[in-house]
Amino acid sequence: METFDKTFDEKYFSERRTIRSYTSEPVSDDLLNRLLDAAMHAPTTGNMQLYSVVVTRTDEGKKRLAPLHFNQPCVEQAAVVLTFCADCHRFTRWCEASGVDAGFNNFQSFFAAVLDTALFAQQFNTLAELNGLGCCYLGTTSYNAPQIAETLSLPAMVVPVVTLTVGYPASAGVDSGRLPLAAVMHTEKYADYTDEAVRELYAEKEVRDDSRRFVTENNCRNLADVFVSVRYPRPSNEEFSKIYSEFIKGAGF
Amino acid sequence: METFDKTFDEKYFSERRTIRSYTSEPVSDDLLNRLLDAAMHAPTTGNMQLYSVVVTRTDEGKKRLAPLHFNQPCVEQAAVVLTFCADCHRFTRWCEASGVDAGFNNFQSFFAAVLDTALFAQQFNTLAELNGLGCCYLGTTSYNAPQIAETLSLPAMVVPVVTLTVGYPASAGVDSGRLPLAAVMHTEKYADYTDEAVRELYAEKEVRDDSRRFVTENNCRNLADVFVSVRYPRPSNEEFSKIYSEFIKGAGF
Repeated sequence: METFDKTFDEKYFSERRTIRSYTSEPVSDDLLNRLLDAAMHAPTTGNMQLYSVVVTRTDEGKKRLAPLHFNQPCVEQAAVVLTFCADCHRFTRWCEASGVDAGFNNFQSFFAAVLDTALFAQQFNTLAELNGLGCCYLGTTSYNAPQIAETLSLPAMVVPVVTLTVGYPASAGVDSGRLPLAAVMHTEKYADYTDEAVRELYAEKEVRDDSRRFVTENNCRNLADVFVSVRYPRPSNEEFSKIYSEFIKGAGF
Repeated sequence: METFDKTFDEKYFSERRTIRSYTSEPVSDDLLNRLLDAAMHAPTTGNMQLYSVVVTRTDEGKKRLAPLHFNQPCVEQAAVVLTFCADCHRFTRWCEASGVDAGFNNFQSFFAAVLDTALFAQQFNTLAELNGLGCCYLGTTSYNAPQIAETLSLPAMVVPVVTLTVGYPASAGVDSGRLPLAAVMHTEKYADYTDEAVRELYAEKEVRDDSRRFVTENNCRNLADVFVSVRYPRPSNEEFSKIYSEFIKGAGF
């Protein structure tokens, strides 16, 4: 395999940003299809490609999806909304049409499909960004999976996993920062964190201007409190857990 | 955002290959750390980075992991084995150390962590390949998650999701082909497949030389039969489903 220029790639990967606002410039079918086609070369379990992507381009389609993503403006503003789905249905249909029984209605197969889906989505995200587009992942996809599935006419064994809004950037995006590598990397064994060590790893994040603003605006004790009291509170996590796990089972997995 | 040369990127993304055999050339700590650091800029749920990666470099470490990946030779041959884990433990520890209660011991939080982990792994995979390394994903990670967790000393709320073997390529890899884009892309709504249509979508895959060889070597009826009778049979899928879902629950999710 050819070795490309390292500095160039590191720069893009380290400086990429999530883009939540878009110009009205359309994304051509040709570009979208080429990017999706190239993204399909992402690694996939046993080369089964256990995923599908539903492309929403019409205003009606985006309007139907918007409330299912809590009316985040990027959904209606984006040129294209892509709903990436774990899909064991197509593979099972191929097996049925081939006269054999596919035993993919279980959690292991769902999990393999989720990984396939995430890798495909991320490969698309990278390709799109490298081609001048901006993207934003919507984690709300799993929160409202039942209604999204109904809106997109998903059959059994097809589960929405994650959504990307895609368009030409109307702003440069924000550098949200990341933890130091030492926070996420372990050598040979997982090394647990003392209170002091873990606070040190999040220290840079806590002193950011936007972090301080979140704390003040939300009347929180500290940044961790913003996450657990405002952004991802236990009752919501538990409610969405129930909805999604029941949906997955109901979808046949 | 700067627009890069499109043809260049499409070529790499469309021609990338999984690499399962490696030379003895080491991968320096500096390169590995730079690639992981850049990969951390992959999109992540609420910028929480709900993942960890355990780096295995020692022969002892690789020998311990090899049987848990059914002794695929790439594990011991790779310069580095990376076990990517969904990790809600570190974030919870930070919350504890900050005096607040993180409600992340549920399926929704686990699922968000799995997506974070997969996006981080795939970003690393792309960066590694662009820098001349070869990688192979091991889906066996979820099959033997309990033993892998024990081997790597993973605490509760840390679940192995996927493994990458990494090294300098000893071979060019094989173009395993992909379905036509029409197979995975749906416009506005999911369009279901007739028997005829689904067989047509897999037709190119079925006539490949390697596909025909798999069928003959395994005494199977057709390619679909290879997948369901030999590679991913229902009893194995169901057994690994039970193991992994029980492990996830046992890990606190």
